[in-house]
Amino acid sequence: MKITRPTLLLDKEKCRKNIQEMALKARNHNLRFRPHFKTHQSAEIGKWFKDFEVNSIAVSSVEMADYFSQNGWNDITIAFPFNQLEINEINILAQQIKLNILLISSESIEFLKKNLKNKIGFYIEVDTGYHRSGIRSENINEIGSILNQSKNFPFLDFKGFLTHSGNSYHAKSQKEILQIHHESLQKMTNLKSRYLSQFPELKLSIGDTPCCSLMNDFTEIDEIRPGNFVFYDIMQYNLGSCSIGQIAVALACPVVAKNQELNEIIIYGGAVHLSKEYILQNGSKCFGYIVRLRKSGWEKSLKNTFITSLSQEHGIIKTTDEEFDKINIGDIIGVLPVHSCLTANLMKQYLTLDEEIIPHMQKKC
Amino acid sequence: MKITRPTLLLDKEKCRKNIQEMALKARNHNLRFRPHFKTHQSAEIGKWFKDFEVNSIAVSSVEMADYFSQNGWNDITIAFPFNQLEINEINILAQQIKLNILLISSESIEFLKKNLKNKIGFYIEVDTGYHRSGIRSENINEIGSILNQSKNFPFLDFKGFLTHSGNSYHAKSQKEILQIHHESLQKMTNLKSRYLSQFPELKLSIGDTPCCSLMNDFTEIDEIRPGNFVFYDIMQYNLGSCSIGQIAVALACPVVAKNQELNEIIIYGGAVHLSKEYILQNGSKCFGYIVRLRKSGWEKSLKNTFITSLSQEHGIIKTTDEEFDKINIGDIIGVLPVHSCLTANLMKQYLTLDEEIIPHMQKKC
Repeated sequence: MKITRPTLLLDKEKCRKNIQEMALKARNHNLRFRPHFKTHQSAEIGKWFKDFEVNSIAVSSVEMADYFSQNGWNDITIAFPFNQLEINEINILAQQIKLNILLISSESIEFLKKNLKNKIGFYIEVDTGYHRSGIRSENINEIGSILNQSKNFPFLDFKGFLTHSGNSYHAKSQKEILQIHHESLQKMTNLKSRYLSQFPELKLSIGDTPCCSLMNDFTEIDEIRPGNFVFYDIMQYNLGSCSIGQIAVALACPVVAKNQELNEIIIYGGAVHLSKEYILQNGSKCFGYIVRLRKSGWEKSLKNTFITSLSQEHGIIKTTDEEFDKINIGDIIGVLPVHSCLTANLMKQYLTLDEEIIPHMQKKC
Repeated sequence: MKITRPTLLLDKEKCRKNIQEMALKARNHNLRFRPHFKTHQSAEIGKWFKDFEVNSIAVSSVEMADYFSQNGWNDITIAFPFNQLEINEINILAQQIKLNILLISSESIEFLKKNLKNKIGFYIEVDTGYHRSGIRSENINEIGSILNQSKNFPFLDFKGFLTHSGNSYHAKSQKEILQIHHESLQKMTNLKSRYLSQFPELKLSIGDTPCCSLMNDFTEIDEIRPGNFVFYDIMQYNLGSCSIGQIAVALACPVVAKNQELNEIIIYGGAVHLSKEYILQNGSKCFGYIVRLRKSGWEKSLKNTFITSLSQEHGIIKTTDEEFDKINIGDIIGVLPVHSCLTANLMKQYLTLDEEIIPHMQKKC
């Protein structure tokens, strides 16, 4: 297939290997593997997980739960705070599949008591340090209040405590990730100890890709829900969660101009393809690394060569004298994205190295 | 219509007024108004421009040119460096409509001589200070080389010089925008003086919304191509290009949680809805201002209340004690986006205050 405009390439082999490794890790640590499908958002890629005995998934919206339930998944956790405005869609889904939601306030229980029409599982989302959403793990009053209020309501089935240590994304070193992970484990374990006698079936679920990729201590944890590992990206590479060779997606971009004076290459590939997510590279913004594309995929990224600026459709690559001369107008070069979830969400489909087109969930319009 | 998930609201009246004002400004300054349609990317919104005698447009991709040509537009400039890999699509379009492309290197002329099958207009894109793409206006050698090489090739019709002073987006004050504008005008005027005798029909085209909104000196300029003004946004408001009341889109978002300790409101509305574009507000990242929604639209934004953090689907709003108490779980609040082009591109449709659904161009899959 001739590529003429920005196209998201997927190296299926790398992707399947990423899935296999995480599935193995979960098995070795006796953890339920509930991959988060918000990264790939693809029924087809979802199927690859079945080869590794995955039967339960997490998603980040009711819309996504609906999409994957229509594609054969029947055990889904919506890992996003319960949105009472979507109660109708949730009631319909709960009739069809094993559905779990996240609760983070006792207010929601009152609402659910009035409006829930089918049995549903719920996790209490706990904040163990990220401070995005969830009840602080020390806030035993609020946790107790949710558990008390839900106790005699047969449609609400308490499953356990869930956290997402997204603060690992801000870590400056693996040592810091280790520390974040252990603090989180400690807080989760405390909750388990406190409530296990009352709820002998309660589970602990953790989620972020850096911790799931790098850590080896999962004492007391029952379930992991990483998502990004399926593709990985430059952000994960910079955190040390993966090697550059594990990154399974690259945006193929036409080279449209060169600026000799500034050693800059201008590509067709901008914020509407990659997203504006960046990392800091020697103090400067970097929106993607550059790789040379071959029929068999791509190899390591080009030295001192990255996207330094992005507008709606343009990407500007700063490079070295040597690489500058080797890249020509009309070439297609590859960009390893900073945040593969956002890039995939923008691109809405994948092209494998075998030239198979794999669809991504579309926005319901 | 009951809103249950993030929905991009469009205040049609504000939008039409923005169009009218820019159209009037162009008429008063005797400029051709060639609005850039990359912001709204909507055939329906495009039609509103017809009421103001607009017949020519700019777009940022061949795909978009194709979409608007299918929707009745027959004079289109693709305001993005010529991508030789899309020559087939360009040949087809050039057969159907009056098409202009941008050239920024003499290399492209050689390619076009071999591959162009229909007459096409071209502008030389000139860099007057933004340093994104285009030939530096002082680089008379390269400009001369393009003009010489294209001279005897009947399919290539030189239209003039085009620039986008995107550096106005980095200005710290209106005085600085004025300075950028005048430097750009000077450089463009120099080119006109130099080549007008040889090309008596040559035109000068400028583009950015800050300059087109704020400036009143367009001496020697023939055409303006602003795009963002159709909706405006927080970035433009911060540059002084518009009032807060002119912003014509707001993302309606469900409130899903509140964090009393931190005065934070958690909304369903994240990077996949708003994009990760931000401005700095007192040194902190701000991903959107917050407004209260009414049936008739929205009013001024809430004091000291903005989105301070965005992940894939979550938005975190920091607010004051007073506002915190007035916002409840289950409410729908509005977010004025930082960059409306990227938000519209992600949302892929609009809902007007009269509950009319207006489609946005879809990604070709």
